[in-house]
Amino acid sequence: MKKLTVTLAATALAALPGLAFAQEAAAETPDINPYIFTTLLFLIGGFLVFWMAAGFAMLEAGLVRSKNVAMQLTKNVALFSIAAIMYWLIGFNLMYPGEWMIEGVMGPWFSITSLETVGLDAADASLDYASVGSDFFFQLMFCATTASIVSGTLAERIKLWPFLIFVAILTGVIYPIEASWQWGGGFLSEMGFSDFAGSTLVHAAGGFAALAGALILGPRIGKYKDGRVVPMPGSNLALATLGTFILWLGWFGFNGGSQLAMGTVGDVTDVSRIFANTNMAAAAGAVTALILTQILFKKPDLTMVLNGALAGLVSITAGPLDPSLFGALWIGAIGGVIVVFTVPMLDKLKIDDVVGAIPVHLLAGFWGTLAVPFYTDGTSFVTQIIGFVAIGGFTFVVSGIVWLILNATMGIRVSEEDEINGLDMAELGMEAYPEFKAG
Amino acid sequence: MKKLTVTLAATALAALPGLAFAQEAAAETPDINPYIFTTLLFLIGGFLVFWMAAGFAMLEAGLVRSKNVAMQLTKNVALFSIAAIMYWLIGFNLMYPGEWMIEGVMGPWFSITSLETVGLDAADASLDYASVGSDFFFQLMFCATTASIVSGTLAERIKLWPFLIFVAILTGVIYPIEASWQWGGGFLSEMGFSDFAGSTLVHAAGGFAALAGALILGPRIGKYKDGRVVPMPGSNLALATLGTFILWLGWFGFNGGSQLAMGTVGDVTDVSRIFANTNMAAAAGAVTALILTQILFKKPDLTMVLNGALAGLVSITAGPLDPSLFGALWIGAIGGVIVVFTVPMLDKLKIDDVVGAIPVHLLAGFWGTLAVPFYTDGTSFVTQIIGFVAIGGFTFVVSGIVWLILNATMGIRVSEEDEINGLDMAELGMEAYPEFKAG
Amino acid sequence: MKKLTVTLAATALAALPGLAFAQEAAAETPDINPYIFTTLLFLIGGFLVFWMAAGFAMLEAGLVRSKNVAMQLTKNVALFSIAAIMYWLIGFNLMYPGEWMIEGVMGPWFSITSLETVGLDAADASLDYASVGSDFFFQLMFCATTASIVSGTLAERIKLWPFLIFVAILTGVIYPIEASWQWGGGFLSEMGFSDFAGSTLVHAAGGFAALAGALILGPRIGKYKDGRVVPMPGSNLALATLGTFILWLGWFGFNGGSQLAMGTVGDVTDVSRIFANTNMAAAAGAVTALILTQILFKKPDLTMVLNGALAGLVSITAGPLDPSLFGALWIGAIGGVIVVFTVPMLDKLKIDDVVGAIPVHLLAGFWGTLAVPFYTDGTSFVTQIIGFVAIGGFTFVVSGIVWLILNATMGIRVSEEDEINGLDMAELGMEAYPEFKAG
Repeated sequence: MKKLTVTLAATALAALPGLAFAQEAAAETPDINPYIFTTLLFLIGGFLVFWMAAGFAMLEAGLVRSKNVAMQLTKNVALFSIAAIMYWLIGFNLMYPGEWMIEGVMGPWFSITSLETVGLDAADASLDYASVGSDFFFQLMFCATTASIVSGTLAERIKLWPFLIFVAILTGVIYPIEASWQWGGGFLSEMGFSDFAGSTLVHAAGGFAALAGALILGPRIGKYKDGRVVPMPGSNLALATLGTFILWLGWFGFNGGSQLAMGTVGDVTDVSRIFANTNMAAAAGAVTALILTQILFKKPDLTMVLNGALAGLVSITAGPLDPSLFGALWIGAIGGVIVVFTVPMLDKLKIDDVVGAIPVHLLAGFWGTLAVPFYTDGTSFVTQIIGFVAIGGFTFVVSGIVWLILNATMGIRVSEEDEINGLDMAELGMEAYPEFKAG
Repeated sequence: MKKLTVTLAATALAALPGLAFAQEAAAETPDINPYIFTTLLFLIGGFLVFWMAAGFAMLEAGLVRSKNVAMQLTKNVALFSIAAIMYWLIGFNLMYPGEWMIEGVMGPWFSITSLETVGLDAADASLDYASVGSDFFFQLMFCATTASIVSGTLAERIKLWPFLIFVAILTGVIYPIEASWQWGGGFLSEMGFSDFAGSTLVHAAGGFAALAGALILGPRIGKYKDGRVVPMPGSNLALATLGTFILWLGWFGFNGGSQLAMGTVGDVTDVSRIFANTNMAAAAGAVTALILTQILFKKPDLTMVLNGALAGLVSITAGPLDPSLFGALWIGAIGGVIVVFTVPMLDKLKIDDVVGAIPVHLLAGFWGTLAVPFYTDGTSFVTQIIGFVAIGGFTFVVSGIVWLILNATMGIRVSEEDEINGLDMAELGMEAYPEFKAG
Repeated sequence: MKKLTVTLAATALAALPGLAFAQEAAAETPDINPYIFTTLLFLIGGFLVFWMAAGFAMLEAGLVRSKNVAMQLTKNVALFSIAAIMYWLIGFNLMYPGEWMIEGVMGPWFSITSLETVGLDAADASLDYASVGSDFFFQLMFCATTASIVSGTLAERIKLWPFLIFVAILTGVIYPIEASWQWGGGFLSEMGFSDFAGSTLVHAAGGFAALAGALILGPRIGKYKDGRVVPMPGSNLALATLGTFILWLGWFGFNGGSQLAMGTVGDVTDVSRIFANTNMAAAAGAVTALILTQILFKKPDLTMVLNGALAGLVSITAGPLDPSLFGALWIGAIGGVIVVFTVPMLDKLKIDDVVGAIPVHLLAGFWGTLAVPFYTDGTSFVTQIIGFVAIGGFTFVVSGIVWLILNATMGIRVSEEDEINGLDMAELGMEAYPEFKAG
């Protein structure tokens, strides 16, 4: 529009050389503000999603027993760090095909992620998007989130190193491949599958990787005894609550940043809608879980309330833009319902998910993906299901194979003795709370 | 200015149709950057104030005894979630009269909050302000903060559900009504009352709602015995400190975002002033409480230092823009003095305020409101007092009535047995730290 | 460029008065967006670095024994608050010579920091930079960080008040002087010394101040016994991990904000590079410490992993912009190596550094400073070493003198009895976790 205007003016005034020159110069100065705004969106969104790594660490440290807290913390710091390296080394360019080829002697080769040069000139920038560095930073956090989901489910019994090897494969290969099907312009995006910020691509995928691991790993010793489910309460609900608040905060970056643009009135207004809807879905999930646990168990259950909020967040993640606030409310509320009903269901199936990550991320992720067509034009329930099945199936099968190989080669489960004594003393030789006596 | 310029040019060049067309087109392209900047201010400010909900949760969880921690956490997650729903359902449009009417069969009706359409066109946006979605998101956080203040005072003895019903009324009706008197363009704003970010509207109002509840609820069992005040130290001062740091961080959004604009040199420079002043007031409050407790009690008192920082923050909230850094220093310092002297005073009155929310939010809120005329032209001490009394009186009386009704109908206090055993086991059937023996 | 264009046009069209007037008016409207963007960078960067104060508080509270936690928390809140006041009173204007003179009766005098007037006009702003308020806010956080580093090393045995007096001198005088040598345009910057965000100016300086204190203070009672190093494990590794995540998050502001500009394509793209590199260095430091402790001690060590991440962050801080992601990786990794090898080395020297701040901040800070010439043109190893020695020597000597004076006058170490009983009960009369029995 602007360019057209200037051209017309230049034509009309061709006889006035000075002015024509001036107009031309103006035409050569493109508007750089959208680029800066969108880059800033990725940086802010990225550090908020980074913060979710801390949220998972606190949530999980709060929900495991004190004898396994130091190990759970170690896993969370390590998994994020490994994700950061693997996504740089392989993941980012694997996820966005077409951008990762470098010409070489024998032909185009895969290349490791590299950033723009220092002091980039405006003429060399993707002015209609954002800086590669900010994009990489933002996308990396999503990859790491996928891995964070896995660690909670498998807590209190998996060995450190096999877990970290799995994380390297998940973040370097599995996640980038399945995510490329949609966000890399792959077949799901061509089919019309819709997953705005990753209910399926991130959350359900993480849940499927966790499920495969949980099935192979088996439940914790003593969890299912004589047909009963033995409660193993988390050691620090203050940390678990803190973790939930951190995740809730980080989710504004997760969903809001996924607008991928902030330089126009429409885009920044959309980011605002997303913030408001994301918050509403979380609130609705929490309130629903609170009311439901009061009704069903006669006592509200704090961990269910926390997981309800998280399930609300996962539910709105596939489509946080299009629903009205009321839409976000009921979509999030159903997420809360899912958690309350499926946490006990998993226990009946003797699938031991220490923190409830499968109900929250896989099942509410499915719901969120399925709910998109209620508000987003041009999407269909069938395509949503196809996308979910494709990504879920792929992630589950490949993760399962990796877990089986790891189990066959190095073993993925600690010894019975180590599990009973706690992973902290057995694997790390240190305790998280060495001065506090276990009751 | 820009428009005028272009018009002159167009007139002078009317004979050159091509250029006139170009200029006209330029005139039609308004500057969208201020809209984007201000919307961004609300989004960043909003997520920082959201984070304050976590701050209150940690502060309160740290200052109650361990037997009540899980309940305090539950209340904090639930109250924020309920506030999010009630402010959407009623609060936001009740607070900004004139914007909430929809035409119907019988006349204009109250409407629930709704956001702009997706992909808003610049021509349809309030380019001199910000997106409705961001504004709602930001304002909602203030409403929730008001409720957060109440939960700390009434901890360790109030029943969960009556408390949450009160929160629904406070955030859906009471806060929006009193806040509309000032921020909704009501009679206080017309009188010249000045409360930049809510020393009175948010903090003192929350404090008055808490005070009404505390009077009706009575002190905890054993708190005042034989004329003595029995100390009931918080169970986790690390969490309380974390909560204070979180609140301090969130306050930059609370005060800074209340500039309500960031798209001009003047506005963004003002936001900077506010950040610097807010930080200074908090620091001064903390240092003052540190020195005073050393002098008065011979030992510094960490909880007083934390509350001193918070009182400094509340004190500067009514006028964070106009004071110099020195002004922020002494205003915040007096906040610290207030806390140190009024916490024991409340105990003498046998008003049991578990976390010190009444000194911090109500009394320092009064001080902050009163201090505005020292630096802000066109304000008067009398009007400031009138505004404080109006909002305080209204909130206190209506809250008191609601508490009395709740007490008469369902009872607001747990049984003596439940209080002694702790709310966690009694009402939730779970403990926050199940593995750590109480000493 | 823009100005030139307009001038040419105006000349060419001198005969068309209306248009000339229009162009002139346009020339008078400078682009304010870079000013807003850079100011925003300082505000966001500033609140992220503020958040690091909470990170240090949690890290240190987690790494001391429970009997000293409340005191460590008190020190952290107090040191930040004192830094905020001292940097306003003296530091900021001492650090930027040339800006701190006010004309007076007898000549130019030192002045206390003051901010721009409210509602600053664009014509009065430094449109090529940012608002003074935001700059002060941002720079203050760096000063406070320097002090935060000291508190960890000297924990569990230093008296509160002498420590706080030292903090006042460090943040009011020592840090501003040494930082002015580089960031205030002093002799180091003229020599070509390069320290982008302060590996030397902030981190090593803090480390040297801590080292001087540790030497004078001596080790904790019982730490070195019969030639053995007695482990004194931290009381809460969940808090220590939280603190590390907070610091990691805050570091994006620390390094990213140090670009000092965000209003051009080149600047915002550089900020993106910095974010990505900062994250990579932290990840590499953590992974390296994980692998090394596994190899050396047969068991991974969580506190080493945390310090490895922090050492990676410190290492990249002197030059976070120029390295490639691979450069950030190996620079950070060497930071991790340094921590693993030098923590035991300090113990051999009987220098008791409770949280490992000297290895992390001083030694990795040296490494980071030394590594700059690998990627940054125009820098030399010799100059880097000279800068490090100058700042380190100055800070170490002056800090040592201050510590010696404090020791001679009021004594800096608590009594043996108080140290054994813990500083919490001895100096504060309160405990951080009063209900949890020490094991």
